[in-house]
Amino acid sequence: MDIGGTNAPFNFVDKDGNILLSKNVNLPTASFVDVKDFIKAFHEKIEESLKAFPEPLEIVGIGVGAPNGNYYNGTIELAPNLPWKGLIPFVELVKEYYTGVPIFITNDANAAAIGEGVFGAGKGMKDFIVITLGTGLGSGIYAGGQLIYGFNGFAGELGHTTAVVGGRQCGCGKKGCLETYASATGIRRTVFELLANSNEASTLRKVSFEDLTAAMVSEAALKGDKIAREAFEYTGAVLGRMLADFTAFTTPEAFFLFGGLANAGELIFEPTIRHMEENIMQIFKGKIKVLPSGLNGASAAILGAAALVWEKLRTN
Amino acid sequence: MDIGGTNAPFNFVDKDGNILLSKNVNLPTASFVDVKDFIKAFHEKIEESLKAFPEPLEIVGIGVGAPNGNYYNGTIELAPNLPWKGLIPFVELVKEYYTGVPIFITNDANAAAIGEGVFGAGKGMKDFIVITLGTGLGSGIYAGGQLIYGFNGFAGELGHTTAVVGGRQCGCGKKGCLETYASATGIRRTVFELLANSNEASTLRKVSFEDLTAAMVSEAALKGDKIAREAFEYTGAVLGRMLADFTAFTTPEAFFLFGGLANAGELIFEPTIRHMEENIMQIFKGKIKVLPSGLNGASAAILGAAALVWEKLRTN
Repeated sequence: MDIGGTNAPFNFVDKDGNILLSKNVNLPTASFVDVKDFIKAFHEKIEESLKAFPEPLEIVGIGVGAPNGNYYNGTIELAPNLPWKGLIPFVELVKEYYTGVPIFITNDANAAAIGEGVFGAGKGMKDFIVITLGTGLGSGIYAGGQLIYGFNGFAGELGHTTAVVGGRQCGCGKKGCLETYASATGIRRTVFELLANSNEASTLRKVSFEDLTAAMVSEAALKGDKIAREAFEYTGAVLGRMLADFTAFTTPEAFFLFGGLANAGELIFEPTIRHMEENIMQIFKGKIKVLPSGLNGASAAILGAAALVWEKLRTN
Repeated sequence: MDIGGTNAPFNFVDKDGNILLSKNVNLPTASFVDVKDFIKAFHEKIEESLKAFPEPLEIVGIGVGAPNGNYYNGTIELAPNLPWKGLIPFVELVKEYYTGVPIFITNDANAAAIGEGVFGAGKGMKDFIVITLGTGLGSGIYAGGQLIYGFNGFAGELGHTTAVVGGRQCGCGKKGCLETYASATGIRRTVFELLANSNEASTLRKVSFEDLTAAMVSEAALKGDKIAREAFEYTGAVLGRMLADFTAFTTPEAFFLFGGLANAGELIFEPTIRHMEENIMQIFKGKIKVLPSGLNGASAAILGAAALVWEKLRTN
């Protein structure tokens, strides 16, 4: 299951990464004020969905991706976009319905990384980093053959490392965080900065901040709009420089870029790789891959959540 | 054995971290032009030293810390300060004398981290980072219960992450690397920047750049010298801000500071911790320890090299 602020779709995934129901079953997250009602409905929907299979399905585990999901504690902690406030003992509550099987939870970006490792382009790699360029910047770090959770379960917050000292105000309270530059929201801010600082004509001058999307910036850039092109160049410069620093830390074999902004393809990959190479230590030059995710965007979150279980069953 | 540019001391270490010879046996690195002669001498000295024990000692493994030591390949690669150029198959060469036992090599900072984990203050911690503040800034990263080597064996180069974009020229060819600020050399550069920018009187105005040491800056600061105090404040500001970013990456339970500059005690710890807390994500505030190393400085490198072996024997 992939819990988001609006929807929480789930599906059944076998050990080879096949998604068994042709369509995800969805729970409308926001309509459940009490998490217990949500989990009750989750249970009911699972049991109901299982009837679709002529041969009975054996559930070997339940994997959940959720904002602020803590792997160690099995909790969702202080998630700003979910209706359930405080510290939610999610795994414990699900266990009331499913006692015999392992249940795991982690945050969405970590689930994406595990999905990439088990079912995607990270298969066989012991060291890689998944970076999701969505509304914010999420990340999951694989190092030495395992996902890095850190001592309290919240490691891998690369979106909140400092890209520019004293830079843009971030939602987290800090300034200059990488996600205020490298994300769908970040490139929007960059476009507006460029519009403010230059006299260059641009179709983007007709669009309000609230209406502007990363897809619109891509489209304008492909048509040759100079402001839009400059925005991708700047985003790649900041992201590439930070990837060079991340390389000096855990030295991944590859970075996988994922999510809305990564869909811009070469527009974002080319400047990112170029600036990474310009800023990387000599010993790493030309050795670190920057690749698109090997998972289908629409099903990645579900595959990631399922991979939490399958990875564990494999390694034990 | 701990190989440095000038000396290469070795000793025997038992599984509890006891150093068995009262004095390290030393090989003068620089006097061996050929690495094979060095290893031959190493072997002879080992055999000779073993005679000192009334009960015969069983050698269960050989651990080596060396600049640019590569754990995966068993090599020393392009070490600028050693007499042996190019790619040295160190482990293979030692194996010609010791066939039956495991032989490991890694770089000095990684050895320090493993030593801290096996014999020092990191015992029982699964996630911690050792930072050596010597001439440069070295680091070893423990995450998820293991040292992180990265996909090619060279991970953990935190000294070469960017602290100041476009900042001080680093020996590695890049600009603004953390070690150009937070190291014995870094604080020296900071003192000279401060002397240049202010009119403040300081005893350090009498000292040349080449003569100035981190210990002299400490001494001046303890006597109330404003330039020296300001230099520690600035060093702590840069280092603390970077520790906050490192926390968002692998989330260590503790940072262990080690080496020359760490010996300045509160002078460096207080501003580093204060600036780390100012710059750290809300969820980590007050939770990350910054501690002195639990290893005796003089024997840390030897213990670290030995821990390479003992850690492996324990986990297998």
